[in-house]
Amino acid sequence: MPDLAARLGLPSDARAVIVSCDELGFTHATNTAIFEALALRRTTSASLMVPAPWARASTAHYRGEDVGVHLTLNSELDLYRWAPITQSPSLLDGDGAFPRTIEDVWEHADLDEVRREWRAQIERAVLWGFHITHLDTHLAGVELKPEFFDVYLELAEEFRLPVRLPGVEAEAGIGFPFRAEADERGVIAPDHVVTLLELGEEPAGIIDALGALAPGVTEVHAHPAVDGPELRSATPDWPARVAEHGILRQIESIVAGAERRGVTFIAYRDLAALARGEPRVAR
Amino acid sequence: MPDLAARLGLPSDARAVIVSCDELGFTHATNTAIFEALALRRTTSASLMVPAPWARASTAHYRGEDVGVHLTLNSELDLYRWAPITQSPSLLDGDGAFPRTIEDVWEHADLDEVRREWRAQIERAVLWGFHITHLDTHLAGVELKPEFFDVYLELAEEFRLPVRLPGVEAEAGIGFPFRAEADERGVIAPDHVVTLLELGEEPAGIIDALGALAPGVTEVHAHPAVDGPELRSATPDWPARVAEHGILRQIESIVAGAERRGVTFIAYRDLAALARGEPRVAR
Repeated sequence: MPDLAARLGLPSDARAVIVSCDELGFTHATNTAIFEALALRRTTSASLMVPAPWARASTAHYRGEDVGVHLTLNSELDLYRWAPITQSPSLLDGDGAFPRTIEDVWEHADLDEVRREWRAQIERAVLWGFHITHLDTHLAGVELKPEFFDVYLELAEEFRLPVRLPGVEAEAGIGFPFRAEADERGVIAPDHVVTLLELGEEPAGIIDALGALAPGVTEVHAHPAVDGPELRSATPDWPARVAEHGILRQIESIVAGAERRGVTFIAYRDLAALARGEPRVAR
Repeated sequence: MPDLAARLGLPSDARAVIVSCDELGFTHATNTAIFEALALRRTTSASLMVPAPWARASTAHYRGEDVGVHLTLNSELDLYRWAPITQSPSLLDGDGAFPRTIEDVWEHADLDEVRREWRAQIERAVLWGFHITHLDTHLAGVELKPEFFDVYLELAEEFRLPVRLPGVEAEAGIGFPFRAEADERGVIAPDHVVTLLELGEEPAGIIDALGALAPGVTEVHAHPAVDGPELRSATPDWPARVAEHGILRQIESIVAGAERRGVTFIAYRDLAALARGEPRVAR
């Protein structure tokens, strides 16, 4: 299969970047920060956690931006929880929510229940009016066990959507050739994935890091949230979320700086068009 | 049956008041306000909405105060929603949450699913460590249809708990003798129920209103919340919730003023002791 950049109509040595925000629906603070990011730059993507408490409320602000489904099997926090939207006993912990860890999911989940729950999450997002552009997972990595990965690819095929996947360099550690499997089945994914904070905490450093990316399509994802008592009570990782919100407020100058270094910015809708068999010339 | 005040060891013309806070678990802002109210005055009661997003998180602050279960069959808000904790297709609206209106519940709910869902809400609260002192409902009034009322009384009998009920004067409007039925089955309820804001918005007026209550046991309930963006996005009735939070911050002087007018303050645990057959002398 030709490389993704070429299929998107970009030079084969292009460095293309998708900026995305995870966990739409997680808290009110998350919805506020993500829709602020999407308003600043409409080609930023977001990923909706359908079973989370503020998921339904996020629909109030949606104006057709790129929204994917953050396929969820975990409720990782100690006391702020969410649960399956289908009748799925094998996806519940003793507390009535999704299990907290990926290992717990892998040990106890019935794959038919996983398939039905994930499909219901996609279908509910569609029912709520979202035009879904991609799939990724929560917690990240829960899909990286062969039998779960098969379900992930099945849904990508069924709904003709691109997915998030770790880069090929992760295959050795993970223990099976997941990228080759996705390629064989024609499922499209960005070539590389990094988190925003891995690139840096200041615009200048982030621009440098974007300018030094490897060729190919890289997804840079964040999970921004505005600071406040709700967020701080919900999750101990609030400082990182607030920091990412601060960075994304400067996204326009970061994008402009990186474009001067030769980076092309695309969106998940470009990959979604390819997945539907509608090749487009990238911007 | 002798009147409730006498059974509590009070003079039969006593005016006794239970102060309670509804919707623990509704939002972070609600949990903060209710636990502030309970910390100021430990005999204030609260009522936990088990399926709501912040219910599990409320357990972090519980120190053995009076907590009842706010038996829930409705998710009334437009976009901030919660769903049954059991597999109950008849308790879902098309959006995957409880129905928004009482009428919708009455028209579509299967009573076996109601019974199982309500029992699961009580059992989950117990599992989470709460010592349950009473039952009430959300939305208030959903229990006031004969077949639903029968389930409400069944659970009160099974768990030997007192319940909230409107005063006898409401029977004509509601159309069946629910208080007589509760009496017949030995289920205990305060004689009267009013909301805090019905008594007034200023401590002086509220003290006057408390001093003028009819004899018997009156429950005065509020649904306090601290102001903030989370609360304002969740519900259009945030101004009333914030006002009640402000009033409850002055609860000590309100209680002192009302006691000088001859009002006795009790708690749901006093009624719970009666329901368990442990008559106690009220304070």
